[in-house]
Amino acid sequence: MHMSSTMDSVVRDMSLAPQGRLKMDWARQHMPVLNRIREMFIAEKPLAGQRVAISLHLEAKTACLAELLRDAGAQVAITGSNPLSTKDDVAAALAESGVTVFAKYHPTPEEYDEHLMMTLETRPDLIIDDGGDLVSILHSERPDLMEQVKGGCEETTTGILRLRAMERSKELKLPMIAVNDAYSKFLFDNRYGTGQSVWDGINKATNLVVAGKTVVVVGYGWCGRGVAMRAEGLGARVVVTEVDPIKATEAHMDGYTVMPMSEAVQAGDVFVTTTGNKKVISGKHFDRMKDGVLMANAGHFDVEIDKVSLEDMAVNKRVVRKDITEYEMEDGRKLHLLCDGRLVNLVAGDGHPAEIMDMTFALQTLCLMYVNENHDRIGRHVLDVPYHIDEQVAIYKLESLGIQIDDLTKEQEEYLASWRL
Amino acid sequence: MHMSSTMDSVVRDMSLAPQGRLKMDWARQHMPVLNRIREMFIAEKPLAGQRVAISLHLEAKTACLAELLRDAGAQVAITGSNPLSTKDDVAAALAESGVTVFAKYHPTPEEYDEHLMMTLETRPDLIIDDGGDLVSILHSERPDLMEQVKGGCEETTTGILRLRAMERSKELKLPMIAVNDAYSKFLFDNRYGTGQSVWDGINKATNLVVAGKTVVVVGYGWCGRGVAMRAEGLGARVVVTEVDPIKATEAHMDGYTVMPMSEAVQAGDVFVTTTGNKKVISGKHFDRMKDGVLMANAGHFDVEIDKVSLEDMAVNKRVVRKDITEYEMEDGRKLHLLCDGRLVNLVAGDGHPAEIMDMTFALQTLCLMYVNENHDRIGRHVLDVPYHIDEQVAIYKLESLGIQIDDLTKEQEEYLASWRL
Amino acid sequence: MHMSSTMDSVVRDMSLAPQGRLKMDWARQHMPVLNRIREMFIAEKPLAGQRVAISLHLEAKTACLAELLRDAGAQVAITGSNPLSTKDDVAAALAESGVTVFAKYHPTPEEYDEHLMMTLETRPDLIIDDGGDLVSILHSERPDLMEQVKGGCEETTTGILRLRAMERSKELKLPMIAVNDAYSKFLFDNRYGTGQSVWDGINKATNLVVAGKTVVVVGYGWCGRGVAMRAEGLGARVVVTEVDPIKATEAHMDGYTVMPMSEAVQAGDVFVTTTGNKKVISGKHFDRMKDGVLMANAGHFDVEIDKVSLEDMAVNKRVVRKDITEYEMEDGRKLHLLCDGRLVNLVAGDGHPAEIMDMTFALQTLCLMYVNENHDRIGRHVLDVPYHIDEQVAIYKLESLGIQIDDLTKEQEEYLASWRL
Amino acid sequence: MHMSSTMDSVVRDMSLAPQGRLKMDWARQHMPVLNRIREMFIAEKPLAGQRVAISLHLEAKTACLAELLRDAGAQVAITGSNPLSTKDDVAAALAESGVTVFAKYHPTPEEYDEHLMMTLETRPDLIIDDGGDLVSILHSERPDLMEQVKGGCEETTTGILRLRAMERSKELKLPMIAVNDAYSKFLFDNRYGTGQSVWDGINKATNLVVAGKTVVVVGYGWCGRGVAMRAEGLGARVVVTEVDPIKATEAHMDGYTVMPMSEAVQAGDVFVTTTGNKKVISGKHFDRMKDGVLMANAGHFDVEIDKVSLEDMAVNKRVVRKDITEYEMEDGRKLHLLCDGRLVNLVAGDGHPAEIMDMTFALQTLCLMYVNENHDRIGRHVLDVPYHIDEQVAIYKLESLGIQIDDLTKEQEEYLASWRL
Repeated sequence: MHMSSTMDSVVRDMSLAPQGRLKMDWARQHMPVLNRIREMFIAEKPLAGQRVAISLHLEAKTACLAELLRDAGAQVAITGSNPLSTKDDVAAALAESGVTVFAKYHPTPEEYDEHLMMTLETRPDLIIDDGGDLVSILHSERPDLMEQVKGGCEETTTGILRLRAMERSKELKLPMIAVNDAYSKFLFDNRYGTGQSVWDGINKATNLVVAGKTVVVVGYGWCGRGVAMRAEGLGARVVVTEVDPIKATEAHMDGYTVMPMSEAVQAGDVFVTTTGNKKVISGKHFDRMKDGVLMANAGHFDVEIDKVSLEDMAVNKRVVRKDITEYEMEDGRKLHLLCDGRLVNLVAGDGHPAEIMDMTFALQTLCLMYVNENHDRIGRHVLDVPYHIDEQVAIYKLESLGIQIDDLTKEQEEYLASWRL
Repeated sequence: MHMSSTMDSVVRDMSLAPQGRLKMDWARQHMPVLNRIREMFIAEKPLAGQRVAISLHLEAKTACLAELLRDAGAQVAITGSNPLSTKDDVAAALAESGVTVFAKYHPTPEEYDEHLMMTLETRPDLIIDDGGDLVSILHSERPDLMEQVKGGCEETTTGILRLRAMERSKELKLPMIAVNDAYSKFLFDNRYGTGQSVWDGINKATNLVVAGKTVVVVGYGWCGRGVAMRAEGLGARVVVTEVDPIKATEAHMDGYTVMPMSEAVQAGDVFVTTTGNKKVISGKHFDRMKDGVLMANAGHFDVEIDKVSLEDMAVNKRVVRKDITEYEMEDGRKLHLLCDGRLVNLVAGDGHPAEIMDMTFALQTLCLMYVNENHDRIGRHVLDVPYHIDEQVAIYKLESLGIQIDDLTKEQEEYLASWRL
Repeated sequence: MHMSSTMDSVVRDMSLAPQGRLKMDWARQHMPVLNRIREMFIAEKPLAGQRVAISLHLEAKTACLAELLRDAGAQVAITGSNPLSTKDDVAAALAESGVTVFAKYHPTPEEYDEHLMMTLETRPDLIIDDGGDLVSILHSERPDLMEQVKGGCEETTTGILRLRAMERSKELKLPMIAVNDAYSKFLFDNRYGTGQSVWDGINKATNLVVAGKTVVVVGYGWCGRGVAMRAEGLGARVVVTEVDPIKATEAHMDGYTVMPMSEAVQAGDVFVTTTGNKKVISGKHFDRMKDGVLMANAGHFDVEIDKVSLEDMAVNKRVVRKDITEYEMEDGRKLHLLCDGRLVNLVAGDGHPAEIMDMTFALQTLCLMYVNENHDRIGRHVLDVPYHIDEQVAIYKLESLGIQIDDLTKEQEEYLASWRL
Repeated sequence: MHMSSTMDSVVRDMSLAPQGRLKMDWARQHMPVLNRIREMFIAEKPLAGQRVAISLHLEAKTACLAELLRDAGAQVAITGSNPLSTKDDVAAALAESGVTVFAKYHPTPEEYDEHLMMTLETRPDLIIDDGGDLVSILHSERPDLMEQVKGGCEETTTGILRLRAMERSKELKLPMIAVNDAYSKFLFDNRYGTGQSVWDGINKATNLVVAGKTVVVVGYGWCGRGVAMRAEGLGARVVVTEVDPIKATEAHMDGYTVMPMSEAVQAGDVFVTTTGNKKVISGKHFDRMKDGVLMANAGHFDVEIDKVSLEDMAVNKRVVRKDITEYEMEDGRKLHLLCDGRLVNLVAGDGHPAEIMDMTFALQTLCLMYVNENHDRIGRHVLDVPYHIDEQVAIYKLESLGIQIDDLTKEQEEYLASWRL
């Protein structure tokens, strides 16, 4: 048995803990699936003796996950997965409760990297990653810590793109479960979660009306669908840009206007990027945007909108409202970038609604148990979430809502299994 | 000519002025109709020598209206129309700019009344009222100041209900224009403005998901319609309660479930009141609500949800998150009241989007000019907004959007005017 | 007391009566408000001894109205209000049941006029008109019959435009109630009725998909709103053209794209006219439409799309599918006109749904009673539907649906009536 | 080389051919993807010498597919895949054009089976099946013809359920491509196609309003989603029943009410089944439905609504309108079954819109080519549609719409392929 980690937490201000605790209590009240799992785990302590390292957006819902894993018997260390999404009060509350925390809002780039490294140095058995930073650094900078790690789970589209690239090039050294690709994740978290929280963030940051505006949604994956659906629900005209012909056709049939970005830049009042790719709005685009446009990003990294080029091209730059930077262009047009191009829902708002993260984190928890028990069998691969786990989360969710559904009768099961009528 | 008012402003903290100014600049950038009118007024000074008293929610958009009237030549005094909607930074910025301000966030009830009175004591020629407090106090407590007042404009459904009651009982002593009842007001401000801003406020306060929830909208007037439309757009199931059979039938045909409040209390996860009436959620209702419900008000006064009864019935009460009070009932259920039952969009958020208030305040301005010039002709009546003013605001709005529409041809005009085919 | 009318019916083929009766039975089963009124009228015979002349689209629902008036004691004569909307089987069934019918599907223009005249020659006491033909001919060609007529009701926007023109020029000789302008009419019939039935008609005629198409809705009155709302509900992108700035702004805020017709002709795949005006799509427009467009009219007369010009400009014309005429233009483009520019919902389909006409015809019935009793008091004017009738229809409708609503408490009534808080 | 098939067509009435041809011309005009493929095939004759047997709903769009395969060089024999969906005029037109047709509207059960058998007896090389009848009979009754058959394609959810059951039990003797499971199929055909056409069929059959009704959608697969989405778009309240917890949760979050069928039967005004299963509305359910309900099926077979039980339980049965059978129950309630429980969109209407079938039949064609060339490699398996075919159809579709999309830059491709930032 290995030694217990005794590292101290690194947080901004421990005196904020009571306020953070209040936020966590509110979140937990709205996470019934996680609460149900916790009840089972408190009794069974299935992670007793395990060390878990987490890199996630460190706010109230995430803190509930961390405490659940602690209650399951694990020693938990956590860092933030984005420099602007950490809530200092929640970090303090969590640190107070026996979880080791390395995270601050708006750290220096050096601090941010150091916190990731400190989290890894707790010598985890299991990892929960969001965007792939923890796993990436483990492979590239601390391969010496690899042996201890049984495997882990990845939360995002972006992180899975990176993991699959590692798997293809045979560089992946541990089993990872692609939590993002579970139905109970992407159908809900990416669509309803991102869909609502992006607009919560934009509206809070701007106090402008959505109705009547032309909103350009860049990318029509599950996040893009959600953002488009809610934009329409708030009264916008929606333009979609895509690189995939099937998704583009779908957006067209969903009643949206599909066009290449070179045209969309002239049509849009608001732009939201949701691609997991880089420079989807780039230098050549800024020149042709309308005066006063808003640009926001909902993808994991702050590279979707090419803010380096934007800064080069602008003759002036100033913060005109919390979370809104105005770039003045040579011809006098003013372009507004929200939250420095970082996740608008997490920086300007509180991120996904609690009930949504409840499902995602239930998946994380059950998948982490699965890796813990099956890591040898899986091998150095990216594994899809086993369907029975996916289904189990939905079953718990329905039960928490008091919703009953039908069962197949024996006659129906036989009918579905036969091919003779 | 009367003496200039020289009273000093009463605000919380003048050092907040720069921050308030930034907010005003952002708002003004999104109020093109008001800006257009301002250009005309700066040249013409049509209100030179007039004193204007305003009672409105004192935030950035309102401040732009106050400055427009100042730029039109008027001496302007302003107070807030709700104790929790005043933004202290904006109040400071406005006071700095030559408008007389009497307003603080969260004043004592005594202060609140005193600020209303001080505003009246500037001896206004013209009044802009919101909810009817200024006009009501003028009639009941300071009839001595009546003679100076030519008339005014009222912004809200609630205020107009009160004015019409005064008119019916022959107690109204001055001409008032019912700005709320203009198409360019209620179709937009009440529907799209309240519709979006209520959810912006609720979502910011709660960080919960709307999709999948059952939302009870109490009252299906233009505000209720907007709240219901956006609830649906965010993925909710909508229940409507009404007292008017035509509106109830309309809600039913709009795909919502119509039921009496006695049933709705058992169905709802979220309740939003939009009636202009009192105790639409009352003592008998709290007993049958589900555990964990949210209650928010979007009507002018904090009397729609009977919080006095709620407090009596609860065994415990605490603030669980900014703008959320939890009432614990005898049976353990927890009911959550947002913003103390005051306007959720103004207390938890920044109120209506700027582009919406642009139209409403353009109406206010043009109607105030109309009263100024026609008060004798109108007499002691509540007057509907003259249609040419209503239409003019829409024309300016379309022009600001760069939208062109069609004109009737001469042949078409004749066709529409004739009855022989 | 005057002599009974004994004129014989003029219909296409009496042998179709059983089929028509079946259609009427189905319709009546879905008209609970009318059935409820009928129960009262069968006992009271409130129209005993009265002659009623009707011009309406003669199909199953209308036939139920005619039979209701007969059951109320009246002698009823009816003709169609559009040459292509008469259903010959229903006409036969009605003729068999003691109502005098003058109507055929696709009559010659001479026959159509003759049927109107024969209907007038039954010397009615009361008139129900749709589009204004009956009243117009009465005034212009048979003023000798005027004396007998007490007054009547008008169903449509178009008819009321004509009546108000007559009233303005002092040519109106009898009281007419503007049934179209009742809330229980236009909110439901024009919006939900036209909205659905236009698409039922277009889809039946074309078997094409609506999703992904650009639909141009010409006119954003209540009919246009309904057509736009359902187009969006079926997945279309909606473009609106208007002449009214307030309606244009509303369409913009509803998420539609507003543009002048000169631009819309290039954007549209489908055009639907709903204006009550003439030549809203005219010669200059056909030249710039896309190949393959569909054009349909939902307004009362077949003059909204200028089919005379279209025929002049086309080099070839042929029927390519029931209710679709293809016009081949000089440059090879093919434009498709549905139902010869006549009401697409009534010609290609069965018109408004039964439950919708139930409300409209209940209004007609109660308003006809009102004219019968109050014609002297009303005078030669166009009268709005009395609010208590409007409300009564909604009350009956809610009862038929089993929907209960709330009542104001005494405390609430007092609150709403007072202005002091 | 094998002998040419010379069997004569069996159709209802060859004199209907001109009318059928007109319908085919209209459909073809709206199938640009198929037309584009046809241009290539006319030159290349890639199916020269091949015999193709088709079982599909025999209407205008299907006829265009049959002619395309004929133009590709094949000898084509076709039968209907449902006794009530065959259009006799189209069958005649097709027979006239060199395709061998065995199909009549409303054949006897014996005739229906005989037509399937005759189609098989043309000794096909390739098969296109819809619902699995052709493949099923081939296996169970005519294994002697198996050797000639290289493989085929299956169109529907139901057919694929049957094929996978055969594959599991090792009874499948030929390669079949699961066309239904392609993105370009189920995202469009099942969702937008079924979604719209089901309501086109119901509305045409009933002339009732959808707005305000409670619609129970049984099954939330892609067809059910489409039916629910369009029901909502037409103003209905939607109830969903499901057996799958993930789909049930999704329906809940989409704003629908999820409940077991035992409760839904009491809530619904309209029921639409879309499951591919049997007896999803069964004997125990009919007893508790409301008076006047409508029941329609959109699944392949007429077994989803248990009409045998319904007939047993009813005391009376009569046709009350074309395509509507009324069952009178012992307690006087009247239940309405549309189209005898067969596909409501194909029996009461013309089936899926042409532009939708364009994509599905393009998939069929390209997949048939793939089987022709790769049958040996595939073996006796159910194969998913190769992704490049799926994508190709979407590319053709976008091109036909004139829609351009973006390409990844080299920098973006590299970014997506790497895991180091």
